[in-house]
Amino acid sequence: MDRGALSNITILDLSRVLAGPFCGMMFADMGATVIKVENPQGGADERSMGPFQNGESAYSMNLNRNKRGITLNLKEAKGKELFKRLVAKADVVLENYRPGTMEKLGLGYDELSKINPMIVYGSISGFGHTGPYSKRPGYDIIAQAMGGLMSTTGWPGGQPTRTGTAMGDVLGGLSCAIGVLAALNARSTVGRGQKVDIALVDSVVASLEIINMVYFVEHRIPERIGNRYESTYPYDTFRTSDGTIVIAAGNNKLWESLAHVMSRADLLEDARFATVAQRVAHHEALKPLVEEWTMRYTTQEVYDMVDGAGVPCAPIYDIAQVAADPHIAGAREMFVEHEHPVAGKLKITGSHLKLSETPATIRTPAPALGQDNQAVYGGLLGLTSEEIASLRDEGVL
Amino acid sequence: MDRGALSNITILDLSRVLAGPFCGMMFADMGATVIKVENPQGGADERSMGPFQNGESAYSMNLNRNKRGITLNLKEAKGKELFKRLVAKADVVLENYRPGTMEKLGLGYDELSKINPMIVYGSISGFGHTGPYSKRPGYDIIAQAMGGLMSTTGWPGGQPTRTGTAMGDVLGGLSCAIGVLAALNARSTVGRGQKVDIALVDSVVASLEIINMVYFVEHRIPERIGNRYESTYPYDTFRTSDGTIVIAAGNNKLWESLAHVMSRADLLEDARFATVAQRVAHHEALKPLVEEWTMRYTTQEVYDMVDGAGVPCAPIYDIAQVAADPHIAGAREMFVEHEHPVAGKLKITGSHLKLSETPATIRTPAPALGQDNQAVYGGLLGLTSEEIASLRDEGVL
Repeated sequence: MDRGALSNITILDLSRVLAGPFCGMMFADMGATVIKVENPQGGADERSMGPFQNGESAYSMNLNRNKRGITLNLKEAKGKELFKRLVAKADVVLENYRPGTMEKLGLGYDELSKINPMIVYGSISGFGHTGPYSKRPGYDIIAQAMGGLMSTTGWPGGQPTRTGTAMGDVLGGLSCAIGVLAALNARSTVGRGQKVDIALVDSVVASLEIINMVYFVEHRIPERIGNRYESTYPYDTFRTSDGTIVIAAGNNKLWESLAHVMSRADLLEDARFATVAQRVAHHEALKPLVEEWTMRYTTQEVYDMVDGAGVPCAPIYDIAQVAADPHIAGAREMFVEHEHPVAGKLKITGSHLKLSETPATIRTPAPALGQDNQAVYGGLLGLTSEEIASLRDEGVL
Repeated sequence: MDRGALSNITILDLSRVLAGPFCGMMFADMGATVIKVENPQGGADERSMGPFQNGESAYSMNLNRNKRGITLNLKEAKGKELFKRLVAKADVVLENYRPGTMEKLGLGYDELSKINPMIVYGSISGFGHTGPYSKRPGYDIIAQAMGGLMSTTGWPGGQPTRTGTAMGDVLGGLSCAIGVLAALNARSTVGRGQKVDIALVDSVVASLEIINMVYFVEHRIPERIGNRYESTYPYDTFRTSDGTIVIAAGNNKLWESLAHVMSRADLLEDARFATVAQRVAHHEALKPLVEEWTMRYTTQEVYDMVDGAGVPCAPIYDIAQVAADPHIAGAREMFVEHEHPVAGKLKITGSHLKLSETPATIRTPAPALGQDNQAVYGGLLGLTSEEIASLRDEGVL
């Protein structure tokens, strides 16, 4: 079947950089008609963000694949007018401007819903569209910092640590997709669209899950504890002769298996390690005892022995290993080779949304600036080629 | 309006611990009828996971609010039969067993879709339902390790670092929600349900975004670089006299403003710091120059000066600060006080999915084990109280 899961949905994507484009990308991968709307002067910000291949931004080519591209100057009266005509024909508007920007343009949700009451308006911002910090700039690192994530990531005695990807943006993009899809469903029950107001900071807070609950219930501020977990041990990383390995012996049975494969059955008699709670309490004593064994072998050797004993374990992959893995890159097709007219052959990230009947696909490369002006303004709005050329000359397109 | 965005959707939630229950929680918060199906012997695993309040698991109370609860023994023939009758009346089945488990029970997607071709089957597992690692155990830390996230989190010269929340599980839960909602939409175009196969590892890989592209385009393995970013500087954390602050002076204009507020206009004449690329290249020289200034003041003092100069900055909150913040906890209502019949008053995490017409709400506490057996088996399937009692005696419910 060639139609994606969202083939009946048309999205106007005004968003830039990461969180919004990432959200639009998932919709486009699942078959929605996602029309990326860019300013005629240079287009979306991510076009100038590296890394580059043949002068084309791989940052942008990854995030904007499968989208169509038009230019539109939203500061011009004629641009606003055209945008409203597009909104009348669309299902979703997606934007990640600082709150107030769309309202200042006269294109806020309240205005757009008058034109098309069924429109779903998905917005992503640092702090959301309500509340005292609403107008503050919203960058990923700010969301990781103020959402509490950095305070819990890192090592005892060390500094609060940023997660090595723009996790605040990613969480915001995923969350906006959920909100928009739920709002699309609700059109059939409430008879109208609505505004979805996703904040990066809220999305980070939601990701804390158990960390929040530890604070509320135990009145204890969760600290940075490296790679171990609060609730069980040995469930941590351990150094090997050539790297580091994850071993997750989370319950008594797995701990027994681990002790046996380490030829340390004596530890099973040690009162300090008798229960999960005891092993957590004495993790500082237990870690070197495990590491004394793991450091005698390579990561692969430890993996084979621990896995052979039925204890969950895993290597810690760098990106090259992720990209070469026969399961992740192979069977799960998490990287897709793809031809771009300017950049040439390029590997980009596949879709992690695996649907059996309507699989997500990578069909078209990221659009050149304004490449679909004729198709969209001509086809969707019925403008003539002359009208389009004249709007381009006026700086509207 | 009291109906949530998903008020027309009924979900059978077989999932345990974190990723699946987190996904079901978002559906329930948005008004879906989420029926948590638990084994009659003790119920879902997360009931025994701390922290506890009055003996009730806060871990479970947070994740299972708004859900209804029934018991069902899926290993018994009569249990399977009842489950199939429920599937005939549901829209979604949600599970996060190890791949193969549902098939072994005779309740895999292929079987269930024969009973109800419109059913959407959402599954979350460590490695997905296809490929050579499919049957491996899937824990959060394993997904963080093999998805590449740990390799990019942490400090130069330091160890690969786990993100301080179960981010693999959270990403998997969010992604499953997207896949299931998209599949629900596709029922109207393709005329049937389908299987959504979400892997924690795939979800982590998708979150890497630009990190992947750096490797593919520059053939360079992204390393651990602490809190700074590869693309701009000074965009990092800086120590203050009483803590640490984020300053995000990502472009020339912001860098100039920062230099002026630091009374270090001389740095603007320094060739090492003339462009974004130069500042990234000389970040090791630049960081101490900024820190020399930030360390003279408290975090609040630095914040006031830097923010006053129009440069994005933020404090790094611990969980207590997040929970007390007037914007996050106040205006955005990210924490909700809530009454549980056993635990009493409990603060749980609010919904980050802010929808204007059909707001997500927290309506009912997490269910006691089997509390809705009568309502569901009686109301939905039409069983008599005698039949329900007898099934309970047989160990089916």
